[in-house]
Amino acid sequence: MGTVDTPIVAVHSTGDGPSAWVAALKAEMPGVDARPALEIAGDDLARVDVSISWRLPHGVMASFPNLKLAQSIGAGVDHILEDPQRPTHVPIARLIDPFMAGSMTHHIVLQILRWHRQADKYERFRADHFWAMSEAFDHRKLHVAILGLGTLGEHLSRSLTALEIANTGWTRSPRSVEGVASVSGAEALDALLGRSNVVVCLLPLTAQTEGVLCAELFAKLPRGALVVNVGRGGHLVEEDLIPALDSGQLSAAALDVFRQEPLPSDHPFWADDRIYITPHIAAEVNPATASIVFAKNIALVRAGETPTGLVDLNRGY
Amino acid sequence: MGTVDTPIVAVHSTGDGPSAWVAALKAEMPGVDARPALEIAGDDLARVDVSISWRLPHGVMASFPNLKLAQSIGAGVDHILEDPQRPTHVPIARLIDPFMAGSMTHHIVLQILRWHRQADKYERFRADHFWAMSEAFDHRKLHVAILGLGTLGEHLSRSLTALEIANTGWTRSPRSVEGVASVSGAEALDALLGRSNVVVCLLPLTAQTEGVLCAELFAKLPRGALVVNVGRGGHLVEEDLIPALDSGQLSAAALDVFRQEPLPSDHPFWADDRIYITPHIAAEVNPATASIVFAKNIALVRAGETPTGLVDLNRGY
Repeated sequence: MGTVDTPIVAVHSTGDGPSAWVAALKAEMPGVDARPALEIAGDDLARVDVSISWRLPHGVMASFPNLKLAQSIGAGVDHILEDPQRPTHVPIARLIDPFMAGSMTHHIVLQILRWHRQADKYERFRADHFWAMSEAFDHRKLHVAILGLGTLGEHLSRSLTALEIANTGWTRSPRSVEGVASVSGAEALDALLGRSNVVVCLLPLTAQTEGVLCAELFAKLPRGALVVNVGRGGHLVEEDLIPALDSGQLSAAALDVFRQEPLPSDHPFWADDRIYITPHIAAEVNPATASIVFAKNIALVRAGETPTGLVDLNRGY
Repeated sequence: MGTVDTPIVAVHSTGDGPSAWVAALKAEMPGVDARPALEIAGDDLARVDVSISWRLPHGVMASFPNLKLAQSIGAGVDHILEDPQRPTHVPIARLIDPFMAGSMTHHIVLQILRWHRQADKYERFRADHFWAMSEAFDHRKLHVAILGLGTLGEHLSRSLTALEIANTGWTRSPRSVEGVASVSGAEALDALLGRSNVVVCLLPLTAQTEGVLCAELFAKLPRGALVVNVGRGGHLVEEDLIPALDSGQLSAAALDVFRQEPLPSDHPFWADDRIYITPHIAAEVNPATASIVFAKNIALVRAGETPTGLVDLNRGY
């Protein structure tokens, strides 16, 4: 059981469960007392100082009276904020894993290039044993609007620039990132959309951003644009998508997140091959690389210092 | 007909013919006397000082007695070297268009990410309305061997590095490129292949490189590797590919070039969905951007200076 003085890290995740996470954290931080959150009981509850979680059942966090940090397994923290019994004095940290940013960027680059270079058409041609070239691809005609310029947006912007794909980040309030073209505010967004044939949503999900990907936004884009949603399912007004594709206002959409996950098998998105569906895999967290970040944050919190990825609760992300 | 003193640029291309090229060159170089090569006759033949061509019929080049430069429309010059009546004293230039390098890199990045992130599997899942995630993608496990470290190979290497994809270039003779990891020689190639799960062929086609992508090379790779051929069809021993896929030594191949193009409709590659077939579109030349390079080379040659992209005839590229 350890001594009363040894703090405990409570770990929870859905899917394969917490054991892989406990093992990865122990590998990165020898001697750490990390345990599945749902197995901690009695006096041990008071020894938990850090919770590392993905979709921890509501109320569990409130059972740790000495909690100093609620660390999310993922870039989003909505699953923590949604717990009505969450102890509001406990700081929350998002996972900022440079490896995950790389994976997210790969996902988005793949979706953009798949669309730009007409990969689906050439795959159909292959299936038909049909050799035909179209007009040369001209990547000088691409302009990507990146909604949200946090760690992931900044990483994407730098990578697109390295690939000679023009891009501009957008943030609600002014934010300057060296070497990244960006604009802010509602008016600038309209102008940016008007010259962007690709929109990537990397916004946090808040009351302000819910439903941002809607008919009104699509109408501001040049005809035939591509929309990539890797934020949250709630960013997209799902009813608006297929009509925008049917009208030609959008030519394709790449969706990795949905209002309901798993996407129900009778959902109309499945049957539409203009919608590139991936099952929330754009930036799957990797226990080995995430644990490097967790170990650092545990050490910081225990030393009374500020962890990385701290969420500003006034903004909600 | 212009004065006897005005030099003529003879233009030839297959596909849509030379008119788009003549127009693009005139747009870039006002006043240039550019004409379709096959329409030049009589005294005008002696006025041709530059030929800009793709697959000019054999013998035509020999009819220009004052030719100073044979400029290829494309990175390859084999179509010029194959002309038995080619005037051997005339320097040959490859097209080195920075825009084309960007397009080639996009093609290769798309093929690598399509394979690494299992895009085909997720597209089948979509068609089946099936939601399932696999193990997280770990791009730290990728290592790309780039065979050939010319302009295109160097560009690819820098872009992969920006995307956090480890890569090493290989050249026959030692060649150092700042910021690009590279090795040279036969022994180093074997070691490089042993640790590369992706091989990209960007070599020129010469007697030494013909058939380099063969069973012997595949056997040196870790099991389940991806082979990307964007060099020439002659680099691949076609009979060796499907057996390597069937044995699992390779898991996929992305081929943009073939020994016979168009690929005959009864060719076994078409029916194999482990072979990503594209119809020679990796780096389609763009008349607008290529003409910037051509105009520069015409001016250099007429000023008695060395054009860019000059081919070393001893090496054959």
